[in-house]
Amino acid sequence: MVKTPIYFDHAATTPLCKEALEKMTPYFSEIFGNPNSQHVFGRESVKAVDEARDTIAKIINCKPNELYFTSGGTESDNWAFRGIAEAYSNKGKHLIISPLEHAAMLSTAKALVKEGFEVDYMKVDSEGFIDLEHLKTLIRPDTIFIGCMLANNEVGTIEPIKEMAKIAKEHGIISFTDAVQAAGVIKTDVKELGVDLMSMSSHKIYGPKGCGALYVRNGIKINNLINGGHQERMKRGGTTNVPAIVGFAEAFKIAEREREENFKYVSALRDKFINRVINEVPYVKLNGPRENRLPANADFSFEYIEGESILFSLDLAGIAVSSGSACSSGSLEPSHVLLALGLPEALAHGSIRFSFGKHNTEEEIDYAVDVLRDSVKKLREMSPLFKVEGEIKYV
Amino acid sequence: MVKTPIYFDHAATTPLCKEALEKMTPYFSEIFGNPNSQHVFGRESVKAVDEARDTIAKIINCKPNELYFTSGGTESDNWAFRGIAEAYSNKGKHLIISPLEHAAMLSTAKALVKEGFEVDYMKVDSEGFIDLEHLKTLIRPDTIFIGCMLANNEVGTIEPIKEMAKIAKEHGIISFTDAVQAAGVIKTDVKELGVDLMSMSSHKIYGPKGCGALYVRNGIKINNLINGGHQERMKRGGTTNVPAIVGFAEAFKIAEREREENFKYVSALRDKFINRVINEVPYVKLNGPRENRLPANADFSFEYIEGESILFSLDLAGIAVSSGSACSSGSLEPSHVLLALGLPEALAHGSIRFSFGKHNTEEEIDYAVDVLRDSVKKLREMSPLFKVEGEIKYV
Repeated sequence: MVKTPIYFDHAATTPLCKEALEKMTPYFSEIFGNPNSQHVFGRESVKAVDEARDTIAKIINCKPNELYFTSGGTESDNWAFRGIAEAYSNKGKHLIISPLEHAAMLSTAKALVKEGFEVDYMKVDSEGFIDLEHLKTLIRPDTIFIGCMLANNEVGTIEPIKEMAKIAKEHGIISFTDAVQAAGVIKTDVKELGVDLMSMSSHKIYGPKGCGALYVRNGIKINNLINGGHQERMKRGGTTNVPAIVGFAEAFKIAEREREENFKYVSALRDKFINRVINEVPYVKLNGPRENRLPANADFSFEYIEGESILFSLDLAGIAVSSGSACSSGSLEPSHVLLALGLPEALAHGSIRFSFGKHNTEEEIDYAVDVLRDSVKKLREMSPLFKVEGEIKYV
Repeated sequence: MVKTPIYFDHAATTPLCKEALEKMTPYFSEIFGNPNSQHVFGRESVKAVDEARDTIAKIINCKPNELYFTSGGTESDNWAFRGIAEAYSNKGKHLIISPLEHAAMLSTAKALVKEGFEVDYMKVDSEGFIDLEHLKTLIRPDTIFIGCMLANNEVGTIEPIKEMAKIAKEHGIISFTDAVQAAGVIKTDVKELGVDLMSMSSHKIYGPKGCGALYVRNGIKINNLINGGHQERMKRGGTTNVPAIVGFAEAFKIAEREREENFKYVSALRDKFINRVINEVPYVKLNGPRENRLPANADFSFEYIEGESILFSLDLAGIAVSSGSACSSGSLEPSHVLLALGLPEALAHGSIRFSFGKHNTEEEIDYAVDVLRDSVKKLREMSPLFKVEGEIKYV
């Protein structure tokens, strides 16, 4: 018998790993000094933060002074987008992003539009890949920013960011990628990607919540989002969150060390899951691609059923998943990602995201498929719509 | 023999208390769900955050839905100031603050001025109290914001915020107080204070770093600083930092429970310290008032010596203090607070802040005075300036 509850929502957040917690622990109550303080308590904290910065800089292949710690991926996204828009607004006020971005980007885009900026959205295909030819047609003399996720949080599409950054560079435009879902999962070498800015998060890779980072290539100007003292070379105010930064670096180090191994293991679980679901659950659509997909992600739309109903059935059976992304949960809107992929509104409402982790097992996968198949069948039997349109077709 | 190092820098940060850490611990790796997720892991986190919000709301006497969690005091300050300025800019673009504000406010003021806002500064007297009569003369029809710290981080002055808020209210202007140094130390009842917004920090009161809150009275509009998902009723994006919030609430609860007792104990230590220093160290000036002063704070300027030199001497003797505030450390500028109090530049350079905590002892105070007296004497003997001007007067 499989042990429940089973956690299949790793794209929303992950448990803090033992190693990161152990590394953080002394910095809560013993080595607790403010790194800005010029005394023994402060100096020990400075050392820890410097080491953490070096660790992450090495992983993403940047200089330590190109890395800024923030309160998380959302702050990093806001800062990158707004900070560049404001700093380069004298050059132009045209910004290009993808329609699949996280709410952190999309709502910042809305705010920037109110302030006089123009935002255009790259086309994406039905699997969520950005259309680079369309991107080229959007570029104008006043374009100052091109940004896209490295990997999508909802359907797992890994975007051609290297190619996007190359196009941006050819036009002298600043490029940004949101690597919140990608960092620690796939390779995130900023030199190889060629981007000018990249945002990262800690709690998606078994690090603590409340911590993230922004890579800003030396030479790029950026306005502050959070003003304050001398922290982060005067670019991000607020007392340095030493334990969280130490934990983030440790988690990132482990994620990088285990990256290829975890990729293989989790992809195999996911592929087994996807294959069984496609074979055993009728009227189901896999959202996102089969190749160039995050190893952890399986996202399905179910005809004739609301996503929320499946979510509740699975929850009752001890399986924790998401309908769309956790960040838009509480919303009754259909997924903006699925609509951008061209799904009809009904299907965009009925999607469920399974995101697996390194501690999940084949046994859990099998249990989940069994429960899902039975739940979907029951829910459809109760659905008046399905009785009219689907009954005969259901086998 | 007193045990060193001795920590006298509680205004910069405090160690996380055992109770808060214990309360936080399950939320790192066990109850780790994203509160935005609609499953069992998420629901347990929601419960914890709701409880924390209720706890703090009760302490500051507001409704839970008037409290927003942030990454700390600096973010809360930035958000309050910029968020109100932007939301009410159609009504006017004139803002009033004190010259003693934290860098989070002062640097935001500079940024807002660049964006077309006007900022005026209330006069303060030589002890740091804001001049309410002067404030009245600054008010214009287009004034939309009046803000001042509840207590100053450098010289400890507790400001007449109730009276300030009353003046603001009479003119239909939004009032804000930065209670980062005050919350958990003195009473911070928002109804009694009458302010519309109040910022708070966790790590100044034995809570975790990377967490703070902003009180925004219902009915007040405020633009977002960090855009994102549905978190914090759509006003602050980013995955909710559950363990930090739980720890903050626990620390605040303890601080409030022990508030009067700690106030008495720490004030007594401080008064002993101040009295001995004044009696035993010549050419010394206490900055800030004797009454209406934070219990933990003693700030002195020393003639003929740089603050940094005293700081290093004390550090060598195992006593951790600050020259000015930790947030401006690394800066070679004289303290903006002391300049505003009318100190000449030389004295504003030579200040040392001692900030005591509930774990400090009389023995530590006595040791520190002894070391301070001897260090100051030695440093002055080495100072060419003192040999000319001070020698005869030194007893």
